Amino acid sequence: MDERTTLTPTSDPAEIERRLAAIPLPQAMETQRSIRRVLSDPVDDVVLRPLIRLALEAPTGSNGQNWEFIVVRDAAVRRSLAGQYRRAWKLYGGIGRRIIRGKPDEEQMLRIMRSVQWQVDHFEDVPVLVVCCLSGGHGRVPFVPNPPNANSMHYGSIYPSVQNLLLGARAIGLGASLITLPLWSTLFARRVLGLPLSVEPCCIVALGWPRGRYGPKPRKPTEEVVHLDSYGNRGWMSERS
Amino acid sequence: MDERTTLTPTSDPAEIERRLAAIPLPQAMETQRSIRRVLSDPVDDVVLRPLIRLALEAPTGSNGQNWEFIVVRDAAVRRSLAGQYRRAWKLYGGIGRRIIRGKPDEEQMLRIMRSVQWQVDHFEDVPVLVVCCLSGGHGRVPFVPNPPNANSMHYGSIYPSVQNLLLGARAIGLGASLITLPLWSTLFARRVLGLPLSVEPCCIVALGWPRGRYGPKPRKPTEEVVHLDSYGNRGWMSERS
Repeated sequence: MDERTTLTPTSDPAEIERRLAAIPLPQAMETQRSIRRVLSDPVDDVVLRPLIRLALEAPTGSNGQNWEFIVVRDAAVRRSLAGQYRRAWKLYGGIGRRIIRGKPDEEQMLRIMRSVQWQVDHFEDVPVLVVCCLSGGHGRVPFVPNPPNANSMHYGSIYPSVQNLLLGARAIGLGASLITLPLWSTLFARRVLGLPLSVEPCCIVALGWPRGRYGPKPRKPTEEVVHLDSYGNRGWMSERS
Repeated sequence: MDERTTLTPTSDPAEIERRLAAIPLPQAMETQRSIRRVLSDPVDDVVLRPLIRLALEAPTGSNGQNWEFIVVRDAAVRRSLAGQYRRAWKLYGGIGRRIIRGKPDEEQMLRIMRSVQWQVDHFEDVPVLVVCCLSGGHGRVPFVPNPPNANSMHYGSIYPSVQNLLLGARAIGLGASLITLPLWSTLFARRVLGLPLSVEPCCIVALGWPRGRYGPKPRKPTEEVVHLDSYGNRGWMSERS
């Protein structure tokens, strides 16, 4: 199968299940990429259901399953989040552009930034936003000091699930991207989404049928990021697999 | 294919690739579970390589790929981490036992706790620990205040990768569990692993050929955790998919 096959939009349940069952695990991962340019065409619940179902299969700390997913279709809510995205991007995008200037990967980073810019400009037209949340406040135990790695333990209960959602979208051929900037103000996000204080909005998966297509993406060589037993001890993985 | 098929240990590269290519994405997710009871038998690099390769396919914030993976095989390093795990579990396991007493899911939680207890007792015999780290300090931009959701943005760059690793292990039939308690003291973990201050140890994936087996696991019903447009607005997903 050509890795770059474009899958056409569908809302046929049998076809959705066929696509999910047809993709081997490594192929889904190898051709997963952020697709920010999406059509404003509706995405049927038939498409979303299996994605949420797969998201709920992921592991959570102590099997707490303390996740909440807000499926946002309402235009007013999307517009509010788009405004937040714009405000955050004005600041952080500007800084980003200055940071990457003259860097070896400037061209690649500019490509990503152009695609983010497109998403920022069209965010109210993205048909579905899934806001992924954690409930229950940082896995905190009363009367006991939090260990220094408490934050990592906390977010480790939502992002495996988010990755399942993204991989499921890849399998179906639905464009997806993982973003956090529209939630930069958790206070604002809580108000717009009606979240109680005990529920923390962590990230958004923006979904729509793609204008672009899935395919391989550039990656650092393994040797650069793998160490044996102690940091800096390279040599493992020197033989390419 | 029976979902509970036990896959036997192997270090044949062709067999590893066959197992990875044979599993459809939904099946890997649906039968993924924490396998803490593993054999002390060695796990060949031939098995680890494709797992690391898949981990590196995951998304990261701004495609920063700011991950580092320490593959721990050394017995002394494993012993040190086992000691930390034991110290943390003595405190948090004891609290956990008191918290779940009389709760509706007490029996299920006790099953998990017994399995964690086994892992704590045998941690130095787990053949491979992959310590997953982030480098570069919380995605912080100098001179600009961090947005309130900076922590989520940060950990969103490691856990999708961790999930790829876990799903790859599932496909190969290698037992895997995601744990953070042995890293409760990041100071201690940095010393044992030789990590510079700029590298943060986030979690450990403990790997070994399983004593138990993969299979379906209990999950909350979707309706309990999915909301439409605003928190508390149920009704979406009422039709089971």
